[in-house]
Amino acid sequence: MADHLFNRAAIIGAGLIGTSVSRAMRKADVAQEMVVFDQHAESAMRAVKVAGFDAAAPDIAAAIGEADLIVVATPVGAISEICAAINEYAPAGALIIDVGSVKGAVADAAANLRDDIFFVPCHPVAGTEQSGPDAGFAELFEDRWCIISPLDRDDAPYKTAVEKAKAFWERLGAHVEFMDAAHHDLALAVTSHLPHLIAFTLVGAADDVESVAQAEVVKYSAGGFRDFTRIAASDPVMWRDVFVNNREAVLEVLGRFSEELAVMQRAIRWGDADALEKAFTRGRALRHAIVEAGQETAKPNFGRDKKGH
Amino acid sequence: MADHLFNRAAIIGAGLIGTSVSRAMRKADVAQEMVVFDQHAESAMRAVKVAGFDAAAPDIAAAIGEADLIVVATPVGAISEICAAINEYAPAGALIIDVGSVKGAVADAAANLRDDIFFVPCHPVAGTEQSGPDAGFAELFEDRWCIISPLDRDDAPYKTAVEKAKAFWERLGAHVEFMDAAHHDLALAVTSHLPHLIAFTLVGAADDVESVAQAEVVKYSAGGFRDFTRIAASDPVMWRDVFVNNREAVLEVLGRFSEELAVMQRAIRWGDADALEKAFTRGRALRHAIVEAGQETAKPNFGRDKKGH
Repeated sequence: MADHLFNRAAIIGAGLIGTSVSRAMRKADVAQEMVVFDQHAESAMRAVKVAGFDAAAPDIAAAIGEADLIVVATPVGAISEICAAINEYAPAGALIIDVGSVKGAVADAAANLRDDIFFVPCHPVAGTEQSGPDAGFAELFEDRWCIISPLDRDDAPYKTAVEKAKAFWERLGAHVEFMDAAHHDLALAVTSHLPHLIAFTLVGAADDVESVAQAEVVKYSAGGFRDFTRIAASDPVMWRDVFVNNREAVLEVLGRFSEELAVMQRAIRWGDADALEKAFTRGRALRHAIVEAGQETAKPNFGRDKKGH
Repeated sequence: MADHLFNRAAIIGAGLIGTSVSRAMRKADVAQEMVVFDQHAESAMRAVKVAGFDAAAPDIAAAIGEADLIVVATPVGAISEICAAINEYAPAGALIIDVGSVKGAVADAAANLRDDIFFVPCHPVAGTEQSGPDAGFAELFEDRWCIISPLDRDDAPYKTAVEKAKAFWERLGAHVEFMDAAHHDLALAVTSHLPHLIAFTLVGAADDVESVAQAEVVKYSAGGFRDFTRIAASDPVMWRDVFVNNREAVLEVLGRFSEELAVMQRAIRWGDADALEKAFTRGRALRHAIVEAGQETAKPNFGRDKKGH
């Protein structure tokens, strides 16, 4: 691999994304040295063991004090507190990126940082339903998209930092797209936040039909329900913070979903077969496009059943 | 393999399920001879080529006239018309099973058949998002559940027929459960019909946010949306018939889902972080139970991304 992009990288948060970043950075030889800080010391120590870090820092000041790259990989709700620490301890010239699923709230938190440090809000659109330092893997970002929503700064050093953030994600295998924070938050409300909310809700509601036992839900989940349980198994704290921090966009797309659902409900009540068939025909083209774009497998049942073996 | 269960099997419908049944029957040597009838002659001919049939019948009378097993593998909406043909042409003693996702409507259609033929309503809870004779595969039913909802008959020959239907599905690798039709229709509304309705609706609603382009939905679908597109790519006609024929149960569970969604919407509007976190915590246990029961893969992202390779 070519030369390092950074001398010392500090990663805050030893979860799925933080330790996938560290593993991918180690694989692509992105930094000379990598340290991790996590508010749970045992997670940080585990990350040193399994995720390519050189050391765990005892506190955030020690982690970022000499770092030329700081990656914030915590739930979005922690961003204000972490920005305060970064403002105090980060060395001049440091590039700071985050990985949060919401960008408007991150931009707000980063707006008052010192001029001599460079926060570039990022969102790699990738993940799994698993959590913690053992869940990460180096290939997580390969052929996925990473959205960069730069702050409202037009000084030349900031622009250089944005370019460096782009180069960073490309070294990790991602494709980079630029987008303003408001548009990001709406687009991701459609493609990620609403789907998670619906999945969490559907899985929760399955408990509510008293006459259908949970054992039956488990047995007959291959009829479709199991598909929803994957994203409903995602980290509850991370998702709590997404919805608290992207309220307007989520409520907007949720309103549209609810309208559509009411239309479907009426079609079922009225036995309007034509309307149902027409509505159900829309899915195939979109799935085909997603498969064509390399964002999904074409194997039936995601390839998880026998035929794929 | 042991002796044949049947001399001549007729399968009506050359789609995913019909041709998975024929392939599995061929693999397990269940019948001496197998014929297929499909209203689309080219589908039937294709099924003869790829799915283990001996011949395609020119019409339904020719298909079932000498069959001791008749498998109805069409959308549920065709069941009345097919029952009329069966009543006219099926030989005395024939076992008839279906594979429909709704059982109450099937039982109604089968209620007035001749006493000397034996219709045993069945629902193998298995499938993929693909359709047609090329989509079937012999292992589709392995380790999946098949629900049998016998008609309201207590004559001894009928009971023997029910046992034979059970033996049939077990030869195909499925586990069999008995359940009355009303309970089936409610349980499957929870585990299959509502998830499909929600997925169809979510994928449809993604088109409605004018400022988010379809290209963006495709690019960022790895954030969660793509999971929904699998079942939203299922056969529109089959699903139209499910909702038309299981209206009450679907409206009942949909009502509960909508209530739960309204609760979540309010928690987001109010920024009630605790309520959201608590609600989001329910998913993991249920997914774990489904994985433990052998109905789902434990691999992150269904194993479809790089790590599983």
